Amino acid sequence: LARGRARGAEWEQAAIIGVGLLGASLGMALRERKLAGRVVGVARRPETLKAALEVGAADETTADLPAALAGADLVVLATPVRTIIQHLHEIGPHLARGAVITDLGSTKRRIVNAACSLPDPTRFVPGHPMAGSDRSGPRHARAGLFEGATWFLTPAPETDEMALRRVDALARALGAQPLLLEPARHDELVAFSSHLPHALAVSLMNSCLPLLAGDPPLSRIIAGGYRDTTRVAAADPVMWRDIFLTNADALGRALASLRVQLAALEAALDDPEALEALLASASAARREINS
Amino acid sequence: LARGRARGAEWEQAAIIGVGLLGASLGMALRERKLAGRVVGVARRPETLKAALEVGAADETTADLPAALAGADLVVLATPVRTIIQHLHEIGPHLARGAVITDLGSTKRRIVNAACSLPDPTRFVPGHPMAGSDRSGPRHARAGLFEGATWFLTPAPETDEMALRRVDALARALGAQPLLLEPARHDELVAFSSHLPHALAVSLMNSCLPLLAGDPPLSRIIAGGYRDTTRVAAADPVMWRDIFLTNADALGRALASLRVQLAALEAALDDPEALEALLASASAARREINS
Repeated sequence: LARGRARGAEWEQAAIIGVGLLGASLGMALRERKLAGRVVGVARRPETLKAALEVGAADETTADLPAALAGADLVVLATPVRTIIQHLHEIGPHLARGAVITDLGSTKRRIVNAACSLPDPTRFVPGHPMAGSDRSGPRHARAGLFEGATWFLTPAPETDEMALRRVDALARALGAQPLLLEPARHDELVAFSSHLPHALAVSLMNSCLPLLAGDPPLSRIIAGGYRDTTRVAAADPVMWRDIFLTNADALGRALASLRVQLAALEAALDDPEALEALLASASAARREINS
Repeated sequence: LARGRARGAEWEQAAIIGVGLLGASLGMALRERKLAGRVVGVARRPETLKAALEVGAADETTADLPAALAGADLVVLATPVRTIIQHLHEIGPHLARGAVITDLGSTKRRIVNAACSLPDPTRFVPGHPMAGSDRSGPRHARAGLFEGATWFLTPAPETDEMALRRVDALARALGAQPLLLEPARHDELVAFSSHLPHALAVSLMNSCLPLLAGDPPLSRIIAGGYRDTTRVAAADPVMWRDIFLTNADALGRALASLRVQLAALEAALDDPEALEALLASASAARREINS
């Protein structure tokens, strides 16, 4: 099917529900690369719709979700996770026949469960591009956001093979590298690779609140290390609230692992050899990731 | 005195003990900005001495510490902290009359105490430039490393005023911003702003060791957030071992604060409002640092 449309766009009309940083970046990329004949952006707030249009994230924007879904052969759910779940319960009656539905949510189990509410759950391809920024909203969107990123796809056993293939091709067309995982395995892994770092950055920042307006102020006593370690803490609190709430059990296990490591480090603070060993293993591992 | 040398270099001969990333960067900057008539670099390992010469960090290098000290009116201790302490106990007999001694160590109380061993402790100006990198060694040195950095100076009550003024002027000439603090206050603050972030990056990295060579490997399931949060963990384990060992009590208190925050976050994982409040306060604080 995908090959058969080689002379035209891959999709006739894409409806992107939620045109924040990710949704708007996707819209820009779909338009720039002519992957969709037409992109409709959906959001509730007029200022978001205005910004999405201005940055070129959509050909048209609307707050009317059913209207946007009416002619769409591709539907992308790009809001915070709990809103994605809510939309999966609501959009069924408004979907066009044969539409492929995907999402950009950072946790997958709860979303996959909610997709059972769809009239035809086989048409839903759960996705999660590992792309983002500490900045949010369409004004920070860019078509190249997905270049080089891992794009998780976590299909259910019943997911339609052609729908999966088309979303896989979409991810590749945006420069991303698709990676198939089971939803539970995905959530367990990103608890360590994404949610735990975020939880640490947030907790580090909150530990330093008393120093923020101190004398000297926090901004004068930090360097690149502090800035990098806490950078992600600046991100959108609502997006991250939903991620943490929908992956609380896996994040709890990751936090437990971290506590073990922190205790080991603290126990080694008067033991030069043990301390150096902990620092050396982290240093070697971090260098391995770089190489 | 400083003003009287305006037509020549500020220092006749600088001896830099330890030409790793920081010491070599200092040597390059002293030479490029003609702040010292001559720069002598000291290290034990031949390959370090060779690299320091090759990158232009010194006019001359030697493994002979007493020889390097003989003609130096500026002595900069730039090794890991526990080696700085050892050198403070050893260099006294070899110092030139009137020499100013300073250091680049990341913790200050233990170093200030060790300086009592010097024949004239009033000539020692304890310093700590908040500059560095996850890369170590003279090959990664650059003259601009200190530009814009805070450069802590933690003089004792007896520190010679003119020596302090000259080291302050040196820091400014390198583009840094000097900041005077008492040694204990310095160590307490950097425990939060530098050592705690490092401890977290190391512990996060060590928590993920089982995933490093997993399927998929860690490198495929991470994005910019993980990279930034763990970046400093790649740094030199020996340098950081010494920092942690010589600031164990203050770092222990910082870790205790962090544990309180982690517990609060974990307790909020089933409470949307409390969770959003924690994420929002960190996000606002992090944005404030950026602005």
